[in-house]
Amino acid sequence: MNIQYAKRMQHLRASEIRELLKATESRQMISFGGGLPDPKLFPIEQIKQASIAVLDESGEEALQYSTTEGFLPLRSWIARRTNERQGTSFSSDNVLIVSGSQQALDLSGKLFIDEGDVVLCESPTYLSAIGAFRTFGARFKEVETDDSGMLPEALERALKETKGVKLIYVIPTFQNPSGRCWSLERRQALVSLAKKYGVLIVEDSPYEELRFGGEEVPAVIGLAPEGTVQFGTFSKILCPGYRIGWVIGPRGIVDKYSLVKQSTDLQSSTIAQRQIAKFLESYDIDAHIGRIKRAYGEKRDLAIQTIESCFPEGVRFTRPKGGLFLWVQLPSKINARELLVRCMERDVSFVPGGAFFPNGGHENTLRINFSCMPKEKLVQGLQIIAEEIGAMV
Amino acid sequence: MNIQYAKRMQHLRASEIRELLKATESRQMISFGGGLPDPKLFPIEQIKQASIAVLDESGEEALQYSTTEGFLPLRSWIARRTNERQGTSFSSDNVLIVSGSQQALDLSGKLFIDEGDVVLCESPTYLSAIGAFRTFGARFKEVETDDSGMLPEALERALKETKGVKLIYVIPTFQNPSGRCWSLERRQALVSLAKKYGVLIVEDSPYEELRFGGEEVPAVIGLAPEGTVQFGTFSKILCPGYRIGWVIGPRGIVDKYSLVKQSTDLQSSTIAQRQIAKFLESYDIDAHIGRIKRAYGEKRDLAIQTIESCFPEGVRFTRPKGGLFLWVQLPSKINARELLVRCMERDVSFVPGGAFFPNGGHENTLRINFSCMPKEKLVQGLQIIAEEIGAMV
Repeated sequence: MNIQYAKRMQHLRASEIRELLKATESRQMISFGGGLPDPKLFPIEQIKQASIAVLDESGEEALQYSTTEGFLPLRSWIARRTNERQGTSFSSDNVLIVSGSQQALDLSGKLFIDEGDVVLCESPTYLSAIGAFRTFGARFKEVETDDSGMLPEALERALKETKGVKLIYVIPTFQNPSGRCWSLERRQALVSLAKKYGVLIVEDSPYEELRFGGEEVPAVIGLAPEGTVQFGTFSKILCPGYRIGWVIGPRGIVDKYSLVKQSTDLQSSTIAQRQIAKFLESYDIDAHIGRIKRAYGEKRDLAIQTIESCFPEGVRFTRPKGGLFLWVQLPSKINARELLVRCMERDVSFVPGGAFFPNGGHENTLRINFSCMPKEKLVQGLQIIAEEIGAMV
Repeated sequence: MNIQYAKRMQHLRASEIRELLKATESRQMISFGGGLPDPKLFPIEQIKQASIAVLDESGEEALQYSTTEGFLPLRSWIARRTNERQGTSFSSDNVLIVSGSQQALDLSGKLFIDEGDVVLCESPTYLSAIGAFRTFGARFKEVETDDSGMLPEALERALKETKGVKLIYVIPTFQNPSGRCWSLERRQALVSLAKKYGVLIVEDSPYEELRFGGEEVPAVIGLAPEGTVQFGTFSKILCPGYRIGWVIGPRGIVDKYSLVKQSTDLQSSTIAQRQIAKFLESYDIDAHIGRIKRAYGEKRDLAIQTIESCFPEGVRFTRPKGGLFLWVQLPSKINARELLVRCMERDVSFVPGGAFFPNGGHENTLRINFSCMPKEKLVQGLQIIAEEIGAMV
């Protein structure tokens, strides 16, 4: 049989991160690859108690189908927390539960993107957002970005000169892959330009609660609650294994997301939603997030110290104040994919940065996840990368 | 702001079943609407023990990200079970874990359907498959179907005369919505025609293990393992709350499904997969399925007796040998949507049949789920429907 796939399949390539994860499944790698939280910080015992309570108290409901929108107490918690942090006035009606925030990206593609439509994005931007939007035929226009965010003049030029712009997709707080956090001024400029040109902002914000230094900056949704949809997730503040995230924004738009979700997977896991809600009701999530932040802050410090002490001259890197990643720029003659091959022979992995640029180039960059590995491996792995860079200089 | 949605949003309407579920969330309805298993049959205590064991034995792994393909022991179990039941020789490499079999439909649309491509389907066919394929621009050609399955001559005509046929989508065993089970001869005819015209068969098979009478018939994937992808789910044999199903078929095609899933939601819940695998390892799923079949068989019998005794003359209905549904055909002048409005005033719901015909018509039909309601409500609800039909004749 001659199977004919849809044309969109031409756009799809396997994610290097996922392939890495597969490659490392059976080996004891030092992995700086995936955006993995440190599993030592998962509150396993508390999650177990929450699981038992849900099954004891409401087993029949927890194991049954439920509504597409999601478990009401969980949606209310998300609305309340967003309101407390961002000064918004959302209710549960503004929240849709999704199967991890990757699903929010997929649903956004379905909901907004026709073949050839343009997504404006940071440069670099999140790898798997590129894949999700491309599936629906999106083109990407990268907007010049520095450590404080998109350059407003570059954004305005892109909005003015580009036909078919549907969305501005940003990860303003501890960006994946760069670790950057936009300044308040840049956020305000984004909001005012999006409003001026009538374009929706999609704010992907999985890391905003993981700040280990500096002052809080309002999320874009707090600055423009009528013109933004924001994606959040329990993957980084609790654990990724449940695959539970959310979309929050104007009700009319969130209702459309629900409609699209209905034919995509009916609903997210009932029992997962109830167990997370029970955890939030029974335990102190802020204390838990405090523990995560201290641990990741220490690892960030250690990673920066190690890089400073052993990476060759001519290597530049970001010093993020939160999140899971830092971003390394090698001398331009070094190709990070070649560096990866050399490092993988020594059981160390990371993600080459080129994959984060939808229009290619930047092969001398790489992303380092510093949250997952134990400290001694963090140091050891970075030293190995340093040696291999040294051998390529 | 003037939000511009993608053109595909024109095809999407809210599922009447999901809307019903929402409407009934807050009321004590007698619902024949959703395809809901009986929650009294959920093995809550065993699931609790499996959950505890997973968190005690492998909490860090269970709460972490994992691979797109799914948890290896669960994929192996699915391959083994399919081989035992269907005489195939699949391995775990032939299996992808998905977030409920609705996701398998969505991924199929993404993978195969370009705007204007045709899906050949039974008449009627599964409501949410229509939505999933339509999102990607599919058109539907309904193939004439009787109680034994698609008519081979009608199928051949459709294959010969229709341009752009991409898939033949069937639910051959205890179909949703009709409860029909295809005969072996019709399955063989399907397989040989699909092969002759080089078209892939998509076999949606959530109910095949729920047979309460008659002889087992091989699944289509057993007759044509090279030319079929089959979708299965734990929703009907265990519980739907986890949202775990699977795709099984030729490795080259299943690999493409994995690739598409990667950019859709990364992976299905790690902890859900591990808890189900632990349940299967620790308890006797066949004994559990035996209990479900006995209970549903009794309810099917009771539903048929009640309909026979109280529905007005001129009403026809199926007598399914398995699954969750029976299908009612009213006298042609009665509109089932109008009947539903009357019944909902008396707190009884079902799904009007028209929604199961992608090209419209058949407004005098309706689907009855007999698995979910307790027996006394089953009888009471059917009597109310009978009275309202009587008032409309």
